[in-house]
Amino acid sequence: MNNYVHGYSEKESTRLHDQASTLDELLHFDSIFPKNSKILEAGCGVASQTKIIAPKNPLCHFTSIDISETSLKIAKKLIHSLKIDNVVFQKGNIFKLNFDTESFDHIFICFVLEHLPNPIQALHSLKKILKKGGTITVIEGDHGSAYFYPNSLAAQKAINCQVELQAMHGGNALIGREIYPLLYQAGFSDCIVSPRMVYVDSSKPNLVEGFIKNTFTAMIEGVEKDALQKSLISKQEWDKGIKDLYRTTEKDGVFCYTFFKGKAINK
Amino acid sequence: MNNYVHGYSEKESTRLHDQASTLDELLHFDSIFPKNSKILEAGCGVASQTKIIAPKNPLCHFTSIDISETSLKIAKKLIHSLKIDNVVFQKGNIFKLNFDTESFDHIFICFVLEHLPNPIQALHSLKKILKKGGTITVIEGDHGSAYFYPNSLAAQKAINCQVELQAMHGGNALIGREIYPLLYQAGFSDCIVSPRMVYVDSSKPNLVEGFIKNTFTAMIEGVEKDALQKSLISKQEWDKGIKDLYRTTEKDGVFCYTFFKGKAINK
Repeated sequence: MNNYVHGYSEKESTRLHDQASTLDELLHFDSIFPKNSKILEAGCGVASQTKIIAPKNPLCHFTSIDISETSLKIAKKLIHSLKIDNVVFQKGNIFKLNFDTESFDHIFICFVLEHLPNPIQALHSLKKILKKGGTITVIEGDHGSAYFYPNSLAAQKAINCQVELQAMHGGNALIGREIYPLLYQAGFSDCIVSPRMVYVDSSKPNLVEGFIKNTFTAMIEGVEKDALQKSLISKQEWDKGIKDLYRTTEKDGVFCYTFFKGKAINK
Repeated sequence: MNNYVHGYSEKESTRLHDQASTLDELLHFDSIFPKNSKILEAGCGVASQTKIIAPKNPLCHFTSIDISETSLKIAKKLIHSLKIDNVVFQKGNIFKLNFDTESFDHIFICFVLEHLPNPIQALHSLKKILKKGGTITVIEGDHGSAYFYPNSLAAQKAINCQVELQAMHGGNALIGREIYPLLYQAGFSDCIVSPRMVYVDSSKPNLVEGFIKNTFTAMIEGVEKDALQKSLISKQEWDKGIKDLYRTTEKDGVFCYTFFKGKAINK
């Protein structure tokens, strides 16, 4: 996970929480599991999703793992402060899981596969510890789904820097569209993918702030140093691209982005 | 309308009907108007939408206009054959409307603004014949919303030929994302835009056939001659682009496209 393309800075941690709280309902209105389910959250990070899905399923038992001790420390503190008591945190590596086969009723993995060079291997590994008949939920974004008004080539190029950098680190920022084939290739069945489109215009000021500015554009801005260092774009075009992303937050602006949520069964 | 970028051939007419029948529910489940409404359909073409919305609103009175006598002839024949009796067809030009001011309760305009060099002027013109408190519905696609798995630069370039050709003819194939600002700039109020995303994977064979192949790829294929004549792309790259679009219809393929439906009030 040294290749994790998003930073571990405090600002980054804030961004991940901003992102989650804005998108809670869109992504998680149906993240509901049968009571008493044993759920593994693979790659919980700083618990941005845990803090939403655990309280939504108070009668389920969550085991949330992450490879980063730093993230786990922040995650534990947060979940404790929110008085959420149905989550156990553990250090763990998705590729070398320390659980018996068929330990869980459900596996939940959100914004993780995008960072892995071998997402199918990760899904294979997770499948082993999932009960027969158990289900998996995968949620991912797709930066190729970002388009906006006014349209801007410079903004598209700035976004593409993030896509290229993530690819250089072995990840895939366009993975959302790929959830269906990935789940099948990993051996899951009955896959249903449901796209969750975020459409923002100025009639939705919360999303203008919470999504366009504080989530998406903040994330793109986060790769400026890397993009310039690797000469993926000129400083001038970068600045124009970021300016144009902010331009979409004006009164006549529009911004579209789509997350993909897939659910499948371990038959 | 000599600049209409889609053809008037019989094949094209079939494509427009295929498109409509596949997308009926997605676009029109909420195309419902109060009974006795007088509705102007501006730019009805061959009645691909008329045949859906008129039967959905049997107690409303539709006046469907188009500038093309050829299209109107096909439209009349179709609506007559379907025994739909609440539509009157008239030849008419959106920019020189032959109706009294405030004649209609609702204006419906679908897949028309994308072809006009001056969509705001068209909306202004329509607003005059709409009653105070009346509403308008605008539906448009956006070719920048098309992305797929496997991803393909050649396919994106082929799509972009259609976007460029439509722009050369004064149209805008990326107009879907712009409905919100257009309606406001034309003086409408309380605009609500609802995106209608078509997500297709192989679990939806009807959409694989009806949308990816017969609607979207057929439309792109329709501009091959123009694109090659204008040297927008090489024949080799074009062929690869089209092949790659068909590749998305295989078992592991995914295709995404979004239509935008806007509704606003004439306050």
